[in-house]
Amino acid sequence: MRILFLNGPNLNLLGQREPDVYGRTTLAEIEAKVREAAQKENAQVDFRQSNLEGELVAWIQQAKGKADVIVLNAAAYTHTSIALRDAIAAVGVPTIEIHLSNIHSREEFRHKSLIAPVCVGQITGFGAYSYILAVQAAVNVNVT
Amino acid sequence: MRILFLNGPNLNLLGQREPDVYGRTTLAEIEAKVREAAQKENAQVDFRQSNLEGELVAWIQQAKGKADVIVLNAAAYTHTSIALRDAIAAVGVPTIEIHLSNIHSREEFRHKSLIAPVCVGQITGFGAYSYILAVQAAVNVNVT
Amino acid sequence: MRILFLNGPNLNLLGQREPDVYGRTTLAEIEAKVREAAQKENAQVDFRQSNLEGELVAWIQQAKGKADVIVLNAAAYTHTSIALRDAIAAVGVPTIEIHLSNIHSREEFRHKSLIAPVCVGQITGFGAYSYILAVQAAVNVNVT
Amino acid sequence: MRILFLNGPNLNLLGQREPDVYGRTTLAEIEAKVREAAQKENAQVDFRQSNLEGELVAWIQQAKGKADVIVLNAAAYTHTSIALRDAIAAVGVPTIEIHLSNIHSREEFRHKSLIAPVCVGQITGFGAYSYILAVQAAVNVNVT
Amino acid sequence: MRILFLNGPNLNLLGQREPDVYGRTTLAEIEAKVREAAQKENAQVDFRQSNLEGELVAWIQQAKGKADVIVLNAAAYTHTSIALRDAIAAVGVPTIEIHLSNIHSREEFRHKSLIAPVCVGQITGFGAYSYILAVQAAVNVNVT
Amino acid sequence: MRILFLNGPNLNLLGQREPDVYGRTTLAEIEAKVREAAQKENAQVDFRQSNLEGELVAWIQQAKGKADVIVLNAAAYTHTSIALRDAIAAVGVPTIEIHLSNIHSREEFRHKSLIAPVCVGQITGFGAYSYILAVQAAVNVNVT
Amino acid sequence: MRILFLNGPNLNLLGQREPDVYGRTTLAEIEAKVREAAQKENAQVDFRQSNLEGELVAWIQQAKGKADVIVLNAAAYTHTSIALRDAIAAVGVPTIEIHLSNIHSREEFRHKSLIAPVCVGQITGFGAYSYILAVQAAVNVNVT
Amino acid sequence: MRILFLNGPNLNLLGQREPDVYGRTTLAEIEAKVREAAQKENAQVDFRQSNLEGELVAWIQQAKGKADVIVLNAAAYTHTSIALRDAIAAVGVPTIEIHLSNIHSREEFRHKSLIAPVCVGQITGFGAYSYILAVQAAVNVNVT
Amino acid sequence: MRILFLNGPNLNLLGQREPDVYGRTTLAEIEAKVREAAQKENAQVDFRQSNLEGELVAWIQQAKGKADVIVLNAAAYTHTSIALRDAIAAVGVPTIEIHLSNIHSREEFRHKSLIAPVCVGQITGFGAYSYILAVQAAVNVNVT
Amino acid sequence: MRILFLNGPNLNLLGQREPDVYGRTTLAEIEAKVREAAQKENAQVDFRQSNLEGELVAWIQQAKGKADVIVLNAAAYTHTSIALRDAIAAVGVPTIEIHLSNIHSREEFRHKSLIAPVCVGQITGFGAYSYILAVQAAVNVNVT
Amino acid sequence: MRILFLNGPNLNLLGQREPDVYGRTTLAEIEAKVREAAQKENAQVDFRQSNLEGELVAWIQQAKGKADVIVLNAAAYTHTSIALRDAIAAVGVPTIEIHLSNIHSREEFRHKSLIAPVCVGQITGFGAYSYILAVQAAVNVNVT
Amino acid sequence: MRILFLNGPNLNLLGQREPDVYGRTTLAEIEAKVREAAQKENAQVDFRQSNLEGELVAWIQQAKGKADVIVLNAAAYTHTSIALRDAIAAVGVPTIEIHLSNIHSREEFRHKSLIAPVCVGQITGFGAYSYILAVQAAVNVNVT
Repeated sequence: MRILFLNGPNLNLLGQREPDVYGRTTLAEIEAKVREAAQKENAQVDFRQSNLEGELVAWIQQAKGKADVIVLNAAAYTHTSIALRDAIAAVGVPTIEIHLSNIHSREEFRHKSLIAPVCVGQITGFGAYSYILAVQAAVNVNVT
Repeated sequence: MRILFLNGPNLNLLGQREPDVYGRTTLAEIEAKVREAAQKENAQVDFRQSNLEGELVAWIQQAKGKADVIVLNAAAYTHTSIALRDAIAAVGVPTIEIHLSNIHSREEFRHKSLIAPVCVGQITGFGAYSYILAVQAAVNVNVT
Repeated sequence: MRILFLNGPNLNLLGQREPDVYGRTTLAEIEAKVREAAQKENAQVDFRQSNLEGELVAWIQQAKGKADVIVLNAAAYTHTSIALRDAIAAVGVPTIEIHLSNIHSREEFRHKSLIAPVCVGQITGFGAYSYILAVQAAVNVNVT
Repeated sequence: MRILFLNGPNLNLLGQREPDVYGRTTLAEIEAKVREAAQKENAQVDFRQSNLEGELVAWIQQAKGKADVIVLNAAAYTHTSIALRDAIAAVGVPTIEIHLSNIHSREEFRHKSLIAPVCVGQITGFGAYSYILAVQAAVNVNVT
Repeated sequence: MRILFLNGPNLNLLGQREPDVYGRTTLAEIEAKVREAAQKENAQVDFRQSNLEGELVAWIQQAKGKADVIVLNAAAYTHTSIALRDAIAAVGVPTIEIHLSNIHSREEFRHKSLIAPVCVGQITGFGAYSYILAVQAAVNVNVT
Repeated sequence: MRILFLNGPNLNLLGQREPDVYGRTTLAEIEAKVREAAQKENAQVDFRQSNLEGELVAWIQQAKGKADVIVLNAAAYTHTSIALRDAIAAVGVPTIEIHLSNIHSREEFRHKSLIAPVCVGQITGFGAYSYILAVQAAVNVNVT
Repeated sequence: MRILFLNGPNLNLLGQREPDVYGRTTLAEIEAKVREAAQKENAQVDFRQSNLEGELVAWIQQAKGKADVIVLNAAAYTHTSIALRDAIAAVGVPTIEIHLSNIHSREEFRHKSLIAPVCVGQITGFGAYSYILAVQAAVNVNVT
Repeated sequence: MRILFLNGPNLNLLGQREPDVYGRTTLAEIEAKVREAAQKENAQVDFRQSNLEGELVAWIQQAKGKADVIVLNAAAYTHTSIALRDAIAAVGVPTIEIHLSNIHSREEFRHKSLIAPVCVGQITGFGAYSYILAVQAAVNVNVT
Repeated sequence: MRILFLNGPNLNLLGQREPDVYGRTTLAEIEAKVREAAQKENAQVDFRQSNLEGELVAWIQQAKGKADVIVLNAAAYTHTSIALRDAIAAVGVPTIEIHLSNIHSREEFRHKSLIAPVCVGQITGFGAYSYILAVQAAVNVNVT
Repeated sequence: MRILFLNGPNLNLLGQREPDVYGRTTLAEIEAKVREAAQKENAQVDFRQSNLEGELVAWIQQAKGKADVIVLNAAAYTHTSIALRDAIAAVGVPTIEIHLSNIHSREEFRHKSLIAPVCVGQITGFGAYSYILAVQAAVNVNVT
Repeated sequence: MRILFLNGPNLNLLGQREPDVYGRTTLAEIEAKVREAAQKENAQVDFRQSNLEGELVAWIQQAKGKADVIVLNAAAYTHTSIALRDAIAAVGVPTIEIHLSNIHSREEFRHKSLIAPVCVGQITGFGAYSYILAVQAAVNVNVT
Repeated sequence: MRILFLNGPNLNLLGQREPDVYGRTTLAEIEAKVREAAQKENAQVDFRQSNLEGELVAWIQQAKGKADVIVLNAAAYTHTSIALRDAIAAVGVPTIEIHLSNIHSREEFRHKSLIAPVCVGQITGFGAYSYILAVQAAVNVNVT
């Protein structure tokens, strides 16, 4: 089981960025927790971040045949990127959408996810723990 | 750790009801899996289902002081019940919203959750496994 | 042929309730006419009314295997209940939606039926005679 | 009792046209069934079809004093023709709106009928049998 | 003069529930104040609360001939229940809509009342004192 | 000065048609009054009515070089016909839009005129006298 | 026959103000033409202009018993003033709405008139000649 | 306790103005009743009316330190004036919004109050008695 | 290969009609070019124009078995005719939608094509050359 | 260079009014700063405030030939006054729109400025310093 | 004649990506066909693909003076990129918008093209053959 | 005082690009003017342009601790980029939004700025002089 974690714009600032909304854990600390959780499940993890929509699109494209599941925190691009949506639909790798904050309780424009309809499911609002839940979900994606 | 699982209208039909959308697992089988997962976490489970909006409201009210976390699959009432929303806000017990199907990839009227803004977070689209993820999320709700 | 007639909130007041809109026939008188019409078609009739959304949901659920057709006048719940819609879709018993008044010529919020998309068809505007037409429609539901 | 059946654009193609949506019965076959049903009720039937909005308007205008009830399947013009609506309101002959398919479960633009507010009622979704129900409804239009 | 006070979902939690929004007075304390105010006006009071939409509908129906005025705090159902609206219109007992908080200064979805158009008037935003004003309004409902 | 008066669908029913809205004057009587008023202004009148959108389009097209002003009561087509709008723009003959009733005080769908933006101006609400005002306006269309 | 002409904000600038839209005739010149036209009809004219919404409201109120018809070019207030609308409805003097330009072919926000529904009719787009047509319309307001 | 009653445009016409909607009591009669009711509560009353938005704004501004509560029937300006809203927010004197008619059962544009969000509460629909209720509410504004 | 070219309302005016928008080529000249282009591809051309929606509907109906491809410039009916849409769907002949002007850069109401969803594709904005491209597209409709 | 500063409703309260939003500087203090800044640029300043929409309209009208630039803080009228917009367009004096607070980060109804489309530009959010920037902008309005 | 073909995000996946929607032809195969078709017309082709919005913007900028026509399949960016629109408007090179699938028959969010208003025209729905039609259109862009 | 000027897509084309809208000054000339103005205020300037959304995001991120104020002309990304908004909110450096043209008087889609709510203020419409005003605003950002 190979899981590709992709993180969108500004997630490299985690820990410093609006800690009331996003918590004080850094992305590196989240990556460490994810690797630990994945190891328990004998899953491999590839963990990346980019501020460029097109780079995220490229990484999704390259996942074909190299990853069994994509876990995608598209951050701001969640609400504006049809290109990400098309990439997910194009490669056919099961993709899990995650968010640190509960996007449904924030500004109106964050309620709508353009990528949700082509994802397996969505986990939102559990802070850094959303990533750990995503490891579990990824490993069990074909179970239910 | 005491977790109250509440299931809304028509979830008693699980297994028979539109299996393409909701899977073939019955609610009883889900309950068994939930109890098993909870036991591993030393968590107690109260697991109920009702077709009555008002009864669900009452159960949430009664959770105060008796449950540490509520896991709520409000089904159809997710999209129409302000009463459930008000009940969650009133009792102040952390509540996790779950769905079997990915509500964001279905009919437009299922995209909007009236209860999401007062919940901790939302787990949607993983079939019966959404419930197991909710056990993990409930146990770790104050971690991140 | 077993037909289950379900009547939603406030229909127990028929005859007294806004007679300009709903006519002066009581629900009991309508039931009598329905039974008479059904008898001619050798059809059995179960005729009920409830003000509780959840009870109507339950009755639809129980129709599985016990009724060949449901005739549903959901009254106010027509426009607000996704739970009724889900119940109809879940049990798979052909359902005919009826209304006494012509809902399409009344307030804007009565034009939209949440249950119509999962019903066989809709008969609206013929007063108590809508019920008699529904008997005919039910008996012939698989004819055309 | 004289009933004028008016059929709008493309209904002359019935039987060939998208049989999954509209069934395999031709308009001629429907006319035959309608005549048979009307005869039992001692009702006379005038049965016409036109692709021209203006011709349908003219036929409705001419119904004054010649028909007791109009049964109108306006097809596509249901959703775009205020002229038909005005004609119905102008002549004052009770008009019953019918549709073969359940327009409320199809594309969004078919949900709204411009003529419904000036009709007695609407029968929709019963295929060719919608016409037979309309005969019953027409004969009983002043009963309830 | 007999006044029926009906309270909707979650109002049984008053005093504990979000005191910043709803105040610290309990429903029992409000009832006591209402009875005291009514007594001064020689009015009888029947004071009830239910979380069930259908039960509130039933109580409104039963008010016919037993109450001269209904005072209704429908809480969450204010914004979602056409059934309550239809019940009020059906029984014809003058009904006064009240709210503890100023619903017009809260979330968008609380601004619209489905029952307001069939009520005599609305009193909103005066906390528990809204109930006392309603007593005055009820007693004088036919004065102006 | 040659003025072409064009009347849209159902205006042939004037006098009988909903007299509360449209008055009791027949179209023939209006034509007589128009001819009388035009004669005083030494203007010639061509006065027609059609229920066919396409025929009205054709008449507008033919006005080029034969009429100095078109006075158009498009009736129901006012709100649905882009074809009429395009015809007016195409021929370049100054066109005056008129209505018997005040369309701005009727149903919402009558407030919007698709042809208004390509007309010189609009006269609405003066009953049959709208036509007489249009004669004055036509004769003076280049004055101001 | 006494006609009160009321002109709203910025109409005192006529002639200088955006002549492409409003023409080069001044308000004084229009007043002169109006007086001339009225004299032919033996009608008296009171002709005023104000930039103050409240002053226009007051003038409408004072028209009661002093004017037989009000001709109102409310200019910008046409689209924003419910106070003017209420004043017209309150005094019950027949009111004719006029505009120099064709408001229906300008910016979207000028298409909607808040006062139209309580006026007899609307004359729009004929430049200064709109005022002369209004004289005719006023004199004949009860004719049709 | 000093209460400032402010009345908006056209309220000076009360009694004559659309009595079906607003009743037959004049503003002077209402003022007399208000004074009588206030006297019983040992409250002083300042009672004014203006058709000018800016004058109402000024009166609200001057209330600072001179009135303990403002009771505002802004009439038409309720729905169009942000200036009134800003004035209320600026002076910080508790303000009670009142209406004679039930604005929520009238035209759509009267349902939305721009000033409600900055007022303590709203009393609407009780005719002249709304003013008396406002006296009670004003005297008790800090009680609940 | 038989191609049926259908032209909607006002296209008979091409060359004279708003040449800035539609160019100076007449419909006859376009037909000539189309025939020339079709001849090179050994395709037969039937080329028609009508201002009547119903006639265009009839021509599409008759295309069944007589044309291999329909090229349709529905002009104004593009945006208002569900009847044309239904006709195209009913006959099942591949249909190519064309426009002279770029409808997507004109008025808002021209952006939406009701027929596009049932056509193979759309060619818009190339003036008369849109027709030549349509010949190429028609001949190659099954290639890609 | 003569600059006319116009201030709309409630700006006379500056310093006392919601200091969190508008700051603690009074309008007189702002005027002093503006005069100081203008003097450095050899510009004359006329500085006024009114709560009356019509008075602001009049002042804009009178600016013609007397001011080279208008700086307008229309406050609440920014979002509701077409009359101000028309006045600006009518006089043709370059106008700069300013605001103390950032209107784009406040309530939805403050985002839309009706006057912006006829102004040179907008400066918003810099508190009292918005006025100083406007002096600079006014002096340089024809530079870029 | 030099034609610049630009392809947006995910088009590098053509052939593998959702073949039901986009066909089985790869982008390299399309390029070959385009070169072949261009050669017949003596046109040079520059053919590129990028997943980066900013890179596509840069390529459009660089086209000035180097390409006579741009053919742009912006894919997902069609619906979200104002930057592409601005680039096209800025460089002034005639641009033809193309799509493989019929965007007007797919999801609602694909119906709106942000770039269409600044393009010459649009060709959509002919699969890979859309590119060949674009070669023809490019070569003839100034003909009609 | 260190000021970071960031320029979004297509601003590198300034001077050539639609000079009617954006003026004839190049970005290099603007930079020179900005440096000159900043020098007078003893402020350092870092001045950059990018067509890549992600690069602009990165530059904003890097501003933390290196710039005291960001001046951002996000051009097209103003209306589509939540990523830029999130970056501004994340780094906490005061940011001033500027535009050359008056975005509020252009196309509807340019009226809404996604970044405005997290900026200090907005300066728009003064051409290249908007940049000079921004220097003043930046230097005084904490003054008012």
